[in-house]
Amino acid sequence: MKRTSRDIRTANRYHLLRQAIADSPVSRAALAEATGLSPATVATLVGELIELGMLVEAGFEDSGGGRPRGLLAVNAGGGALIGVDVAETYVHVEVVDLALRVLGRAHEELAPEDGAPARLVRRIAGAVRVATGRAAAEGRVLGAGISMPGMVDREGGVSVFAANWDWREVPLLALLAEHLPHRLYLDNPMRACMVAELWFGAARGREDAVVVNLGTGVGTGLAIGGALHRGVSNSAGEWGHTTLVLDGRPCHCGRRGCVETYVGAPGIMRTLRELDPRSPLLVGGDQTATVAALADALDRGDPTATAVLRRTADCLGAAVGDLVNLLDPEVIVLTGWVTRRLGDRLLDAVRGAVAWHALPRPSAGAEIVLSPIGANPVSLGAATFALEGALASNGRAGG
Amino acid sequence: MKRTSRDIRTANRYHLLRQAIADSPVSRAALAEATGLSPATVATLVGELIELGMLVEAGFEDSGGGRPRGLLAVNAGGGALIGVDVAETYVHVEVVDLALRVLGRAHEELAPEDGAPARLVRRIAGAVRVATGRAAAEGRVLGAGISMPGMVDREGGVSVFAANWDWREVPLLALLAEHLPHRLYLDNPMRACMVAELWFGAARGREDAVVVNLGTGVGTGLAIGGALHRGVSNSAGEWGHTTLVLDGRPCHCGRRGCVETYVGAPGIMRTLRELDPRSPLLVGGDQTATVAALADALDRGDPTATAVLRRTADCLGAAVGDLVNLLDPEVIVLTGWVTRRLGDRLLDAVRGAVAWHALPRPSAGAEIVLSPIGANPVSLGAATFALEGALASNGRAGG
Ligand SMILES: [Zn+2]
Ligand SMILES: [Zn+2]
Repeated sequence: MKRTSRDIRTANRYHLLRQAIADSPVSRAALAEATGLSPATVATLVGELIELGMLVEAGFEDSGGGRPRGLLAVNAGGGALIGVDVAETYVHVEVVDLALRVLGRAHEELAPEDGAPARLVRRIAGAVRVATGRAAAEGRVLGAGISMPGMVDREGGVSVFAANWDWREVPLLALLAEHLPHRLYLDNPMRACMVAELWFGAARGREDAVVVNLGTGVGTGLAIGGALHRGVSNSAGEWGHTTLVLDGRPCHCGRRGCVETYVGAPGIMRTLRELDPRSPLLVGGDQTATVAALADALDRGDPTATAVLRRTADCLGAAVGDLVNLLDPEVIVLTGWVTRRLGDRLLDAVRGAVAWHALPRPSAGAEIVLSPIGANPVSLGAATFALEGALASNGRAGG
Repeated sequence: MKRTSRDIRTANRYHLLRQAIADSPVSRAALAEATGLSPATVATLVGELIELGMLVEAGFEDSGGGRPRGLLAVNAGGGALIGVDVAETYVHVEVVDLALRVLGRAHEELAPEDGAPARLVRRIAGAVRVATGRAAAEGRVLGAGISMPGMVDREGGVSVFAANWDWREVPLLALLAEHLPHRLYLDNPMRACMVAELWFGAARGREDAVVVNLGTGVGTGLAIGGALHRGVSNSAGEWGHTTLVLDGRPCHCGRRGCVETYVGAPGIMRTLRELDPRSPLLVGGDQTATVAALADALDRGDPTATAVLRRTADCLGAAVGDLVNLLDPEVIVLTGWVTRRLGDRLLDAVRGAVAWHALPRPSAGAEIVLSPIGANPVSLGAATFALEGALASNGRAGG
């Protein structure tokens, strides 16, 4: 175990900039108060962040008589960050400035034949060029974060396994580097969501938090001690393949009874089919349409939809309750497209089910909320990987 | 989130002393190399630890020509630590010096009527006095750590809930302070085991580790980033009450299908009863005797015992596999009296089952081992809480 002084400095930079973004404009004294760092450490870090072009002096605070205090603001123009969300059916790119304003976007649908590595790399690079062109941000890009589904070797820039395209050990960043001039960072959507919540969402200022992502697949991002927990092989958070029912429903991972087979979109469809094989809510085999139909049916009090929600929430309650019992977090943030579709109805049902399934003490400590981050937390989180990368490097990051 | 510079200093003190205990005698340069701390930080910390009486100068290293390097050793006589393991049927006390030599012990059986708070407090205090008397260590005790089963409020020194005696909100440390002059620290056995493994056992030098405790109850201690993970209400690690089989066996916690109902000693007995209701291995209702009989029967290849082990290992494989998938740790340490009884047979079966149940990438990163700590890791861990307490306080800790 080697925690170097450089790691500590990087963690403190994250900590301070995160607070400065949230409270900008803000005095050094207020930053020290909010972060618990000593005034001397804050002064040093602020100097570094000004040097890096991320903070600027922003006038003085009216201090009602005393010596006026200098204020610091985020330097919105100090650099642009690119966040890329690569999903099974689309590539979504956002370019944001340091104040998180979106400067440019691109969204391109993917066809099944786009899944070949060389072809997908060209599609990603093309989408990034479109978005940066729209942002007119070429010159001052601090880096680009890429979120890839599946298992990724972050340090090596390799997509270790992506089930949808049956990718194994694809050196994604090396391939992308032939097309893009930016510093590139790779990770997966669960960790991207967690980082987005830590910096800008419901986990800001929290020590221990979990993001629960409900979509076609399901998984979690974990934060412990205010920082992303990656695990020894950057695989932590595979909650979707923890066991909910020993010897239960078969899972595409080859095992049985995984959480995902009950609370992922295909699992919810299966529950619906078990309750009513001819339900009109089963819109063909289409997950998105079926979940949308479920949401509408819930609004009109449809009994089958209500039973599906109850059963799904019970499974989620047990599986989220396991996270509460094991990790005792301050907050559980629900995100992902299934969450966004089912919204407050899902939240209420899950809160009730977790209160039943988790032990009283950790349950009392864990708030359960919907993600407050809008349209695409994954691309925001991917952009944040680029921001973290720029903060971890020593000098002023270039294109 | 306030991580103060004092927290960082305390963490660095732990980190350095842990390494010094492992490598004693050792040079400052070797400590810097092993910990990743800068030579300047090591010099400061060593000065503090000498001041605290925990390290001493111990001659010079033969450096083959160059300037001789000063060596540091743990100051065994620098203080004694008391560790108390309060269990359902006994109180076990160990007094150790800073080199972890046991100076004195006491072990007293508890009767059911000892469970009343005032009475148990007198029994604990009596056992501590016996052990410290034997250690002749009264004058230089740095503190006493108490491990209590159940949920504990560590900061308040309160036993929040202890199922065996139906304790609720018992202010244990305040009651003990009327009988004992030492600085007192309270926590539970799972966290005591984790701290013992971190300082002196299989988790030393590891970032992310899990201790899995198998006894009458089961649970885990978690280490993330080289430090104990407590959670927001000091309840993290309640793996025993995570769900293995939704709507499965009833659990004393009021829910169903908890891991504990399959892999705790009563769960193993139930599995045996389900396989053969009249098995001669079921020694009355006695857990200890039945597990001992199972171990003996495994040695002679008994088919029922083998089937019980296989079924238990399958459940454990799924439940430990969940820990691997979720936390991606470097090492999983098996401990507890059931583990000690079943030993290598259990280890082999669990390794096989985890390899099947966990995803390949995190599974490849996670070593699974038996605890290398001898007789009583809980009392050693409790003593370690007192050591950590002395390191966190500023001055030289008194009695
Ligand atoms: Zn699975
Ligand atoms: Zn239970």
